[in-house]
Order: sequence, then C-alpha cells, then structure tokens
Amino acid sequence: MPAKPSAGSPAKPSAKSPGRDTYTPESLLAVAVEVFNERGYDGTSMEHLSRAAGISKSSIYHHVRSKEELLRRAIARALDGLFAILDEPDAGRGRAIERLEHVTRRTAEVLMAELPYVTLLLRVRGNTRTERWAMERRREFDHRVAGLLKAAAAEGDIRSDLDARLATRLLFGMINSIVEWYRPQPGDAEDRERVADAVVRLAFEGLRKQ
Amino acid sequence: MPAKPSAGSPAKPSAKSPGRDTYTPESLLAVAVEVFNERGYDGTSMEHLSRAAGISKSSIYHHVRSKEELLRRAIARALDGLFAILDEPDAGRGRAIERLEHVTRRTAEVLMAELPYVTLLLRVRGNTRTERWAMERRREFDHRVAGLLKAAAAEGDIRSDLDARLATRLLFGMINSIVEWYRPQPGDAEDRERVADAVVRLAFEGLRKQ
Repeated sequence: MPAKPSAGSPAKPSAKSPGRDTYTPESLLAVAVEVFNERGYDGTSMEHLSRAAGISKSSIYHHVRSKEELLRRAIARALDGLFAILDEPDAGRGRAIERLEHVTRRTAEVLMAELPYVTLLLRVRGNTRTERWAMERRREFDHRVAGLLKAAAAEGDIRSDLDARLATRLLFGMINSIVEWYRPQPGDAEDRERVADAVVRLAFEGLRKQ
Repeated sequence: MPAKPSAGSPAKPSAKSPGRDTYTPESLLAVAVEVFNERGYDGTSMEHLSRAAGISKSSIYHHVRSKEELLRRAIARALDGLFAILDEPDAGRGRAIERLEHVTRRTAEVLMAELPYVTLLLRVRGNTRTERWAMERRREFDHRVAGLLKAAAAEGDIRSDLDARLATRLLFGMINSIVEWYRPQPGDAEDRERVADAVVRLAFEGLRKQ
C-alpha cells in the first residue's frame, strides 16, 4: 500500500507519494492510455502520468524513454489488432462482400475489445511524428477496407447507387461511433457480439424490412 | 481596414491591434464558433476571441456578456435547426418509417448546412450549465428519433432483429461522423444532397444489393 501523501509537500503538493513500482509494460501502458484519453495527449505531462500511476517520474523513465513512446506503444496495439483482421482467413477468401462483412464485424469487435487503445487512435490529430504515423496507418486501414468495398461493387454485390468512398466513410463513421457510448461490463463477450451483429445488420441489410 | 499591429507592444505581444468593430451578432458568433472548435471551449479565452475577431475584448463585451453566452447562442442555433426538423410536415405524417427517413435525411442536411454549430454541439461535454443543457437537449432529440424508430418497428417496417436503442445509436453515429470529414465547397448544395442520399440509402437499405 502506498504511503499516505504528506500534506503540503512543497515540491509536489498534489501528487500522491510514489508507491513501489510493480508495473509491467502492459499495466503501465493501460494507465497511460486512460490518462491520454481523459486529458488529451497534448494535455498530459509526465507529472500527470506519475500521479495516475502512483509511482515517481524516474520509475516511469525506467519503463519508457518518453511520453511519446507510451503513445506509440498504445497506438501500435490498436493498429496491430486492426491490421491482424485483414490477415484472418475469412478476410481473404470468398466473395468480396463476405470478406467485407467479416472485416466489418471484426473491426467492431476489436474496437470494443481494445476500447481505450482504439479510442486513442481515433482521437490523435497529428502534431508529433507518432501521431502522423498513426493517422497514416489508419488511412491505410481505411483504404484496404475501401478496396474490399470496391471489389464487392465490381462483383455486383453492393448497391450500385452508393459511391464506394462515401459508403466506406459512413461505414467507419458508424463503427467508430461505438467508442462514444460503449462501456465494457464484466462478462461482456455476449454484449460485444450483440453490438457487432447490429453493426453488420444495419450496414449490410439496412433498417427497413425487405 | 485594421491598423497594422504595433510590433512588440508589451501588453499584448501576439495580439493584432484591434480594428473597428463592424460585427453583427451573427458574424461575431461565427468567429467564436470557429475558435471554440479549434481550441475547445475550455481552452478558449476572451483574449483568444479578441485576437481572432481583431477587435478588443471590451468590444466583444459590447455584444455579449460572457464567453458562455457565445456558447449558448451557438448551441441554440444548432439545436433550433435540428428540432425544427421534427416540426416539418413530412416528419409528422405518413408511416413512421417514412417519417424516420425524412428526419434522417434532414438531420444529415442540417448538420452539413450548420456544420460548425453542430460540430460544437457534438463536442461539448458538460462542465458548465450551458453544456449540460446542450447535452440534455441533444439526448431529447435522440430520444424523439428513437421514438420514431420504435413506432416504425411497431408498424412492422423495421427489421425485427435490430434493437431500437442500438439501431438509433448506430444511425446517429453514422450521421454525426460526417462532421469528421465533410468540408463545404462553394456551391455545395448538390454535394450535400449526394451525402444525405448516401446516408439514407445505407441506413435504410444497407450496402448489400437485394
């Protein structure tokens, strides 16, 4: 248990006294991502991270070289999860519309399973090298999905009155909006499946009963 | 024409010298909303507004009593545009699914026509009374649309395998995501119609060719 903060310490008046550093790279990253999502990456200092983790700044520097390294690792986790979808067997075989449906469902699932990491990815705006890299990789993912949508259109399985680029944007808009309201509950695998099902039904079949 | 900034003024080193105040309430609001969207409402000071408008803070106080009043006016403009949709004749007659389709199309259109105001509305997070009011009114709008969706389901026109609350969230997710990429062009009425058409087709008929 960390020691009680000593009231009115002049150096760090509002900081918790640093506790013992029992963090793994993963658990420290989880704390950092939470703070980034709450305060924004630009608005987060190493001091904020130190307070949230309850360990000293020098302990954090023992794990990572910089705040930007934490951002890079967090973004990489989100991107790895998303790009792995494109290598799944069902993303590579069968008609393009079936592959697109698989990728849509899995993108929603990965977004919910890796919620804080994907939330951070969707919010970065490109002030640092890492943020520009994140935006570029995100565009690449969107581009790969847009390619699937175009292939499905070429195979005659997509409504011909929908522009592929616009449809891709709206599809991602729908999927990405899940971060605004989805909050995982304990034992939520069923809930995630219910949401992913709804995304696929709405996107592929639409609201209207045929 | 505003006077040239006097270099190195100690009081406001980076401020433009205030020009003559030719603002109307509407044109001053447009400037304020631009700054709010760029810096965030919390991150915007009267000093930032004064610089962006090129008039003194006291000139701004001649138009409005506070920064929050500017926020309230901007949010009211977005909300008035959205709630007016619900009073349109096509939102009140016919089968619920047709009313829902009308409201969906018009919500996308109003979002694009009032882009900066609706963007601001979607971003407020509830620290001040005005922000809490904005969020409450936004929930009320969503609730009214969810009601239409439930009515359409009760009339048997919505796919029975879609939960109404979830479908409403995803529908708004898709519509609201337009603020992320839509940038109005001169003479863009046609472009707006094209986007609104795509939203309605995707939401009601889905991607898949029947």
